[in-house]
Amino acid sequence: MLIRVINPNTTASMTELIGRSARAVAHPGTVVEAVNPQCGPVSIESHYDEALAVPGLLAEIRRGEQDGVSAYVVACFGDPGLDAARELARGPVIGIAEAGMHAAAFLGRGFSVVTTLERTTGRAWDLARAYGFGERCLGVYSCDIPVLALETDPQARAVVTEQCRRALERDGSDAVVLGCAGMADLCAVIEDALGSPIVDGVAAATVFAESLVRLGLATGKHSEFARPPAKPYTGVLSAWGL
Amino acid sequence: MLIRVINPNTTASMTELIGRSARAVAHPGTVVEAVNPQCGPVSIESHYDEALAVPGLLAEIRRGEQDGVSAYVVACFGDPGLDAARELARGPVIGIAEAGMHAAAFLGRGFSVVTTLERTTGRAWDLARAYGFGERCLGVYSCDIPVLALETDPQARAVVTEQCRRALERDGSDAVVLGCAGMADLCAVIEDALGSPIVDGVAAATVFAESLVRLGLATGKHSEFARPPAKPYTGVLSAWGL
Amino acid sequence: MLIRVINPNTTASMTELIGRSARAVAHPGTVVEAVNPQCGPVSIESHYDEALAVPGLLAEIRRGEQDGVSAYVVACFGDPGLDAARELARGPVIGIAEAGMHAAAFLGRGFSVVTTLERTTGRAWDLARAYGFGERCLGVYSCDIPVLALETDPQARAVVTEQCRRALERDGSDAVVLGCAGMADLCAVIEDALGSPIVDGVAAATVFAESLVRLGLATGKHSEFARPPAKPYTGVLSAWGL
Amino acid sequence: MLIRVINPNTTASMTELIGRSARAVAHPGTVVEAVNPQCGPVSIESHYDEALAVPGLLAEIRRGEQDGVSAYVVACFGDPGLDAARELARGPVIGIAEAGMHAAAFLGRGFSVVTTLERTTGRAWDLARAYGFGERCLGVYSCDIPVLALETDPQARAVVTEQCRRALERDGSDAVVLGCAGMADLCAVIEDALGSPIVDGVAAATVFAESLVRLGLATGKHSEFARPPAKPYTGVLSAWGL
Amino acid sequence: MLIRVINPNTTASMTELIGRSARAVAHPGTVVEAVNPQCGPVSIESHYDEALAVPGLLAEIRRGEQDGVSAYVVACFGDPGLDAARELARGPVIGIAEAGMHAAAFLGRGFSVVTTLERTTGRAWDLARAYGFGERCLGVYSCDIPVLALETDPQARAVVTEQCRRALERDGSDAVVLGCAGMADLCAVIEDALGSPIVDGVAAATVFAESLVRLGLATGKHSEFARPPAKPYTGVLSAWGL
Amino acid sequence: MLIRVINPNTTASMTELIGRSARAVAHPGTVVEAVNPQCGPVSIESHYDEALAVPGLLAEIRRGEQDGVSAYVVACFGDPGLDAARELARGPVIGIAEAGMHAAAFLGRGFSVVTTLERTTGRAWDLARAYGFGERCLGVYSCDIPVLALETDPQARAVVTEQCRRALERDGSDAVVLGCAGMADLCAVIEDALGSPIVDGVAAATVFAESLVRLGLATGKHSEFARPPAKPYTGVLSAWGL
Repeated sequence: MLIRVINPNTTASMTELIGRSARAVAHPGTVVEAVNPQCGPVSIESHYDEALAVPGLLAEIRRGEQDGVSAYVVACFGDPGLDAARELARGPVIGIAEAGMHAAAFLGRGFSVVTTLERTTGRAWDLARAYGFGERCLGVYSCDIPVLALETDPQARAVVTEQCRRALERDGSDAVVLGCAGMADLCAVIEDALGSPIVDGVAAATVFAESLVRLGLATGKHSEFARPPAKPYTGVLSAWGL
Repeated sequence: MLIRVINPNTTASMTELIGRSARAVAHPGTVVEAVNPQCGPVSIESHYDEALAVPGLLAEIRRGEQDGVSAYVVACFGDPGLDAARELARGPVIGIAEAGMHAAAFLGRGFSVVTTLERTTGRAWDLARAYGFGERCLGVYSCDIPVLALETDPQARAVVTEQCRRALERDGSDAVVLGCAGMADLCAVIEDALGSPIVDGVAAATVFAESLVRLGLATGKHSEFARPPAKPYTGVLSAWGL
Repeated sequence: MLIRVINPNTTASMTELIGRSARAVAHPGTVVEAVNPQCGPVSIESHYDEALAVPGLLAEIRRGEQDGVSAYVVACFGDPGLDAARELARGPVIGIAEAGMHAAAFLGRGFSVVTTLERTTGRAWDLARAYGFGERCLGVYSCDIPVLALETDPQARAVVTEQCRRALERDGSDAVVLGCAGMADLCAVIEDALGSPIVDGVAAATVFAESLVRLGLATGKHSEFARPPAKPYTGVLSAWGL
Repeated sequence: MLIRVINPNTTASMTELIGRSARAVAHPGTVVEAVNPQCGPVSIESHYDEALAVPGLLAEIRRGEQDGVSAYVVACFGDPGLDAARELARGPVIGIAEAGMHAAAFLGRGFSVVTTLERTTGRAWDLARAYGFGERCLGVYSCDIPVLALETDPQARAVVTEQCRRALERDGSDAVVLGCAGMADLCAVIEDALGSPIVDGVAAATVFAESLVRLGLATGKHSEFARPPAKPYTGVLSAWGL
Repeated sequence: MLIRVINPNTTASMTELIGRSARAVAHPGTVVEAVNPQCGPVSIESHYDEALAVPGLLAEIRRGEQDGVSAYVVACFGDPGLDAARELARGPVIGIAEAGMHAAAFLGRGFSVVTTLERTTGRAWDLARAYGFGERCLGVYSCDIPVLALETDPQARAVVTEQCRRALERDGSDAVVLGCAGMADLCAVIEDALGSPIVDGVAAATVFAESLVRLGLATGKHSEFARPPAKPYTGVLSAWGL
Repeated sequence: MLIRVINPNTTASMTELIGRSARAVAHPGTVVEAVNPQCGPVSIESHYDEALAVPGLLAEIRRGEQDGVSAYVVACFGDPGLDAARELARGPVIGIAEAGMHAAAFLGRGFSVVTTLERTTGRAWDLARAYGFGERCLGVYSCDIPVLALETDPQARAVVTEQCRRALERDGSDAVVLGCAGMADLCAVIEDALGSPIVDGVAAATVFAESLVRLGLATGKHSEFARPPAKPYTGVLSAWGL
């Protein structure tokens, strides 16, 4: 079984972090590869960044289909390009916001999300509602830390932990979902500090992707998510037509 | 890792079927045990049966806690006693309707459910809404086959397959969730016949339970799902107090 | 007309209190009997207690059917076993959370609920949503008073009154629903103190049960709530089969 | 206890029918008076009719306040002017759509509505959603019979009965709510013919109004439903200012 | 193109203000007339006032139909009588709450409403939900200023501005909708002060009415909003029958 | 006032059609320019096409900001890239699905959508729900006509008209929204044939964009839709960083 975890931004150090988090939970025998696109933003912190990360992400999916990938993880908490990726891929594709919220839903009544910048909280709410968790998601909190500063800011761990604590208290949540792939390595330490379940979407998506492959399940291909109709693409995207 | 799959009815042949389905998807190294309560109905086909299956189910959870069980699967599509089981257990507890619907949600836009008796369709809708899948669940169909007849009725396979076909066509669904633990062994053959993903909740719950254990996640224990307060129980339930 | 009010816990003093509250509002000519099961928890303060109160409750319904009961009230704010009771009974069955919320819905735009322990607030929200009052229920407040302490704690009245006052102010509610059968005798004194409608579910369920009998209405019996199919029960529940 | 049932249209024969239906279910000792406004439409079959029925209805409420009325029923299935009536009245005010839907909600999972003209079905859906029954209301059917023809059309009973039968079959409903005060006398005969609960809103509102008075409950008066601020009214409404 | 803006209260100075606001945004060539009914309340501050403003409003619509009006604006934030007006008019009819909320929905994720009296906030929530903006409307704030005092109270501008500032901060809104036609002239000054979009419903309804006329669109007339059936009206409303 | 209507696909003949439709409804004095990106798919018929149309669309927005564009229309019924475009643009940005649904919401209770390919119906439902019209959108119908065939297939007009007729009948809708920019020129002829309002999103978005400019309103820029943070972009997108 080959799981490819795609970091949709182009920062290699973050891709490595994501790969470590995914491999730490995968079952023996599962090969996990973490990759990032050749083109796109160095981090995703706006609808604009997210939209422009998608072409590179889709190129990775197309490459993956040639490589015989069993399942994909889209490792950005905005779950960019998920529907398009599902059209392209034969195997299952799971987003980390999707996986993190599904995992949290198994752990009690309600969860909170702790993310990076305030401007991304709206997207988190959109996804919670789209996935059916509009009532289970009790709050979305931001840390005012840019994505790439998670690796370098010495205060990052303390700030994220403190926001998780606030979220648990204010919302009466049973669990917290970390709202950025760059927080994957903070999960265990925050859970130790607070004593409540803390969910890392990268890890959750990896085991759920494994699970679906194990179950022999993949995206339904008879209607909306059938392979896109082939057609010409123009300009710098001319190579993209199927 | 020890996963205990609890069939809440008292029919041993169905417990065996459930155990086979669960073991078929568990990863190597995971021990899967299928059990059923000492007391309760031989099948669950009404709110009444479901309510009366719960004491036996909870006794199994209490026994499991003494045996060091890592995670539990509640293997009846009504997900009876799930909240109470989560209070009692230290590890995660997953219902098969819950797991089947979560799995289907990863496979496209919408799913249908195919279940046994018409009178159980209301419970399926209740669960779909409670889990957040009120919009993704596009239809619930019944087969007019009692639970225990699934094992003996020579027409059962054909009838369930036909209802799955109808569900996919009418609802434009991307997947079908089988609405009874007793249908677990029909999953592969129906998927082969119809070419769309067919989800068996027993298998899905087993791999998701494994996943949560692998992630180090369990029910949040700081509020609603803390261990129940100890107190006296009277009458035939006098042994039930904690 | 014979209304049987079933206290699903096994504490006789609470059954008496409930009976007094119900009789105080019943019309002349209506016979109100308050009973409690022979087996079960002495109070209901968790999903676990609630699940284990149901077998005793259903035994009372079965006994009631032999006694020619016209309608039943389930007098615990979690409305345990309501669907199963409706399958068994020929006449109407009403839960006190259900009745209290319906009554409050007639009194303005929104209501608040004041209940006993924090861990029971989730169940109150579940019921509000299930009954259609997810938007009308503006808040659920707990008093940190165990159910049985309502009778003995000299501070109970003051604490419950204070939480009702907070609820009315914070939520801008038009009414408060008391979230425990054990609060039935506090209703009038709190309403006098605060000047807003305070709803006791026991009284509300009693008059609504009378109302339905008077209207000649009972649970629809042609599909989901038809009498459960007869079948064997094993173990200590072997006497439960229909 | 004095219950005043207000028929918001000006057809006296319909007022009499409504009065009979209400009195048939009221408890001994309750005085039920059926009245209609001095001004307004002879029947209510559009948003326009409904809007213009409200001034006469409110005049009746004001008269009732002088007469010491305990509670009011608004006996038109569009529940016209209900919020305004609640501001004016000290006692409870209940609409017949509101009461019929509340009653039906006690009788199972879902209900259907059978009403007069197709153009009124939208209003029925609006009310079902406003009262919280958007999911329990499974269908709204019209009979293509004008309101006043219910009294005179020899086919009316058969047509309404047939639409109730269709509604029960198509929707799998547990009950039907009759969607016009002019259908009040058809209730028993249809219930006999079909064997499922048929709800007449006039009767339901009458016993629920009695119930609220018996419980000592009335509209909360501390915010939205406080008595309207006094102010000048001009033109033919100059007498309306408080 | 003739747009008639109807102030449903009878205060001429407010009608003039509304007319100025509407004309300020209408395109050259559009004739905007502001009118008010001959009968009704001098201001609308309760469900009662609103209900009694409707007959005068509908009389204006009927007069407008004779005058060849192209489209109507109902210039009270409760959008009184909108459904009935749509039945009567051939051209489009738009309410100012409706228009203000639609406009705000184009400007970002969420908006807040700032209105006059606390007792009117419930109606604003009802409308937000009815128009589909139950999730986009993040808060409704009142200023404790009666409608007619908006013109005379020297503090009005400062108080409304301050509530808009609070709303933007607390709700994280992208825009504020002013909740009273009498606030129309405050819009620009508050937007200058706060730097976020402030929406005046009168102006918004005027340009949207123009837009619909320009698009050749009007209310669908084949079912619910067909012209009301003609029938007798009695009493002071005897002239109202169609 | 300069309105730029962006066709997100790269087919020039469709851009011309869209430009004609927009100019036909714009007020005198408004300059309407129709453009399409330099790169991207020749038509948009999948999530994949939609995702890959967005970079070219955003490039057009960036060019527009340099050209002093007052407002933008995104002229594809999937409203691709709308959130990202709102971050980039100073003036308002409106999608044609968004505009068409808003327009239809003013015309009665419910509308239907008629679109091209079955696989795009899911996106239409997503948008209806995201914009708040989940209950007003009564049905989405497809014509089995590829986007570019709308211009060339001699049967297209008849097929689209027939689906509009079916939609009106089945759903009891008050209006139909045409679900593709390429249907813009069919609007008038279908409205003439069916007598119910038919809404072309291109025209609707054009007049609503004009309306917002006239009102002085644009996207709120203080939080989620502030200009995206500047950062490096790599690969073929290296020119995209702000």
